[in-house]
Amino acid sequence: MVHLPKTLILASTSPRRAHLLRQVGLPFQLKTADVDEQYNGREPVTFAMEMSSKKANVVAVSMDNAIILAADTIVLLDKQILGKPKNAGQAADMLKILSGRMHEVITGYTIFDRPSDREITDYEMTRVWFRDLDPEEIDVYVVSGSPLDKAGSYGIQDDFGAVFVNRIEGCYYNVVGLPLAKVYQDLKRCIKNIQ
Amino acid sequence: MVHLPKTLILASTSPRRAHLLRQVGLPFQLKTADVDEQYNGREPVTFAMEMSSKKANVVAVSMDNAIILAADTIVLLDKQILGKPKNAGQAADMLKILSGRMHEVITGYTIFDRPSDREITDYEMTRVWFRDLDPEEIDVYVVSGSPLDKAGSYGIQDDFGAVFVNRIEGCYYNVVGLPLAKVYQDLKRCIKNIQ
Repeated sequence: MVHLPKTLILASTSPRRAHLLRQVGLPFQLKTADVDEQYNGREPVTFAMEMSSKKANVVAVSMDNAIILAADTIVLLDKQILGKPKNAGQAADMLKILSGRMHEVITGYTIFDRPSDREITDYEMTRVWFRDLDPEEIDVYVVSGSPLDKAGSYGIQDDFGAVFVNRIEGCYYNVVGLPLAKVYQDLKRCIKNIQ
Repeated sequence: MVHLPKTLILASTSPRRAHLLRQVGLPFQLKTADVDEQYNGREPVTFAMEMSSKKANVVAVSMDNAIILAADTIVLLDKQILGKPKNAGQAADMLKILSGRMHEVITGYTIFDRPSDREITDYEMTRVWFRDLDPEEIDVYVVSGSPLDKAGSYGIQDDFGAVFVNRIEGCYYNVVGLPLAKVYQDLKRCIKNIQ
């Protein structure tokens, strides 16, 4: 894996993103960014990048020498944003809406270097197809609790998530929460820029 | 997850397939099938299904009451089959050929019930795009040893595999070794048939 000349900070509370960085062998430290994530009505892609940039910039302020990685993932169905469900009922409703249809997953991400203040902000989009779901499997999945902390009420890496999705077009890891191939290449670009 | 009315036997030595079944919470036992996997010149899809059916049938003979799951995964570039590399040099050569191009991953799978002898054999195909790879990252990946037991010399779930692939079209888990959504639905079909 690429050699990091300084500490990598993951500015995210998502356990999935931390897991992905560990999977590709990138050492990092966690630092949470407290940012207002209320949707402001902008284009979803613009909003996702705005959010990741905000998170990275908030954390960067307190860093003397580090690379900060932040991301924001949005689930879109018919141009409507599906956020995290508020309760089990909302999670079941969302899964019923996703059943048998295609939706889009957009992740905005930012790589911010301190002290140079160079920033790379970009996004990735993946199309995801759900097969037709049985009401019973939706119920069992919702009872497991896993849908409750996830935008769109599912994780493609979950037990049921894995058998709900029968096709994607784009980057798989983007659906998990971080487009690894693009982020990795931009990390290399960032390191090259500062050396 | 679906309730299995009898033992599920995974007729495969692949640790990836065992891992996927565990991921979706399906209990199973392992039983290896000793089958000649020499390519016989047939259509790749036909060959993959022929192999999975053979593996399932070989294991089924010694089973009184069980569901047997077998699979065979093939990597295709320009209609040529890329098998498992024989050594590090071959692995590096295969990765160089895959760099910057699209290839296809085909998994034939069989679900065979004993004692009814009902069989479901089907396949899944996924298109996979590699970004342009640096010779150095190919070398580091090959030295890790991971490419050596894998058709096509990579695992999409590996550290480097995850950052080499920037796009797929189709089922992600098919590229890992088992098309979970299709297999899961066919397992449900099989159980319904025998109840």
